[in-house]
This record gives sequence, structure tokens and C-alpha cells, in this order.
Amino acid sequence: MLELLDDPISGNGYKVRLLLALLDMPYEYTAVDILKQETRTPAFLAMNPNGRIPLLVIDDGTTLPESNAILHYLAAGSAFLPADRLHHAQVLQWMFWEQYSHEPNIATLRFWNHLPELDDVQQIQIPAKRANGVAALALMNEHLSAHDWFVAGAPSIADIALFAYTHVADEGGFTLADYPAVEAWIARIKGLPGFIGM
Amino acid sequence: MLELLDDPISGNGYKVRLLLALLDMPYEYTAVDILKQETRTPAFLAMNPNGRIPLLVIDDGTTLPESNAILHYLAAGSAFLPADRLHHAQVLQWMFWEQYSHEPNIATLRFWNHLPELDDVQQIQIPAKRANGVAALALMNEHLSAHDWFVAGAPSIADIALFAYTHVADEGGFTLADYPAVEAWIARIKGLPGFIGM
Repeated sequence: MLELLDDPISGNGYKVRLLLALLDMPYEYTAVDILKQETRTPAFLAMNPNGRIPLLVIDDGTTLPESNAILHYLAAGSAFLPADRLHHAQVLQWMFWEQYSHEPNIATLRFWNHLPELDDVQQIQIPAKRANGVAALALMNEHLSAHDWFVAGAPSIADIALFAYTHVADEGGFTLADYPAVEAWIARIKGLPGFIGM
Repeated sequence: MLELLDDPISGNGYKVRLLLALLDMPYEYTAVDILKQETRTPAFLAMNPNGRIPLLVIDDGTTLPESNAILHYLAAGSAFLPADRLHHAQVLQWMFWEQYSHEPNIATLRFWNHLPELDDVQQIQIPAKRANGVAALALMNEHLSAHDWFVAGAPSIADIALFAYTHVADEGGFTLADYPAVEAWIARIKGLPGFIGM
């Protein structure tokens, strides 16, 4: 059976849990505590030298890190990963954009908001991360004003990857009410059969 | 014919140029000057609302941004993108890692090294980016000490994506000589038939 090593507080882990629920796939869940450095133990680093969760363990014992690569593996052959060459690349386009232009701003500001205090290196980066996060939400809103889903008119792992940190962006000081097309898309995802919350 | 909009100084653009050369695919090249803000004109933003190069224009006029998504599109059906489900996901694992854990440290410090001066926000981030870049090169070196290529024993778009900014890491103040397995891998890539330099 598939095993998922994950910290329940992780949005990247939630991407995987949500897709597993939507696909109705059984799996074993092993909780790993990031804040207790449990991803930096020799045993964990032997499974993922990058020391991060989520980490998928496949039946033969192979370990697969990187949330978006795990989504791709799990969605293969399902409706959440279109087979068409261009649509496939467009799904990945949004997922790479999520990792480079969305997560480091929107997820990071939410994480920092939950810390007791910030150091100088964090503090000075807030304005740029705020501006980049606003730009990311505006870009999503523009796309979703003309499309129900990110790619090819149907929910895909691009939507799952982007949903995880977008739907809790308010916790990072963003105002989702400013992006009505994003809010409508969030409601559509919450209506998918099998949906689970974070 | 395929068209590539790109700035010749871009390492993300070089990924695409290198793969096109290795695949011996013809294309038209349109140079766009980032420093002159040519990616922020209304005409460019109509093609890519994210305002970035490289941007691939496919025969029917569809535009595809994000360097790693472009690599995936171009490599489909070739030896540079393994068809096996797990290998495919492992190629993407390294490509997502490149965008999240490698490029923002190694490429950014190289870019900053080429600027006449840095502002306070950049200056204060240097130590963390240095440490994260060293960790990324060490992780690559560990993997390449046991493998000739990143996935499945053959060159793939994971290698192409990682090669672009790794082979010029010295320009960002890193010391490639400290990573002998990375240097040997760089030499293997330079030996691929059709290889072109940056």
C-alpha cells in the first residue's frame, strides 16, 4: 500500500492528501513533526536527502519527494492529468509557477504570520513577498475570470497544487475577497466529490 | 515552425535552446531584452501575463511559458523524457527541486554578482542564499556520486534543467571544484551530441 510521510500542518502535504481523497486511493499515513526536526534525522534523510515532507513511499519501497511530483505520479492515468501533450505541459506550467512565483510568497507570509517573531532577514523581505503574492493572486484571478479551471476546462493537479495555499491566503494577510474569480474557483474545488479540508 | 521568445542572457532560456539543439529541432528565435523591460509591454503581456521569458509559441499560436514546462512539451516522445510512470515523476521531482531549492539561490547570486550594486533587501539575503546554494550543490554531488544522470541512467530534461545554472555556479561565488561528481556530470553533458554552450 502507498505510504505518505507528512506533517499535518503542511500545505504541500495537504495537496497530496486532497488528491488521494479525490481519487479515493487508500494509503497509510505517517505523521512527521517538522518543528521537532523529525525530517532531519539520519533515518529520514536516508529516505529523502533533501529533508522535506511530503514524501511518498511506493509499494516497492521507492521514495518520491516534492509535492508536485507526487501529485503527477498519483494522477497518472486519471482525469486529473490530461494526456494531451499541450494540456499536460500547461498543467506543469501552472505547477512550476506555483513553486516559483506563488508558494514562496503566499505560503511563506502565512507561515511567518504564525511565528512568534521574525528576524531581520524575514522582516525586510515582507514588502517584496507581499507585492509578489498580490501579483500572483491577480494573475490567477485574471485567468479564472475566463476559465472555470486552470487547464482544458476540467479540474487537474494544477488546480489542486494552487488550491492548497491559495484558499488560506487570508492567513498570510492577503484579502481573497479582492479576487472574486479566485473565490468562485475555491468554491468549485470545495464542491468536488471526495473533497476534504485542510 | 516553433518560435522561442527569449533573452540571450537568460539561463532559463538556455535550458530551452540547449534541448532544441540536442533534439535538432528547427525554430525561430526572437530576442527580447529583459533589462529594457521588453517583457512588460502590453504586446508581450498579452502573450504571457506573467511577463517572463522564455516563451514558446507553438504552430497554432498558443504560447507556453515556464522554462521547465517548455522542456516537458518539447521532450515529449523523445529519450529526454522517460515514459515510465515513476521515472517520469522522478524527472519532475528534480525539476521542481530546481525551481524551488536551486534556482532562487544559485542563479540569483550569479545575477546579483553581475549587478553594479545591491540594495539592503538583497544584501541581507546573501548568507541564506549562499547556504542554500551550497546545500543544493552538495545534494547534487551526493546523487551524482552514485548515478551518471539524475534519473533512470540516461540524460533527461532533469539534467538539462539543472545544468543551465549549475555549470556557471562559480560566477555566483560557488566553487564547483568542491563537487567532483557534479564536475564529472557537467563534462558528460558537454559531451552529448549536439551540445551548445550558453
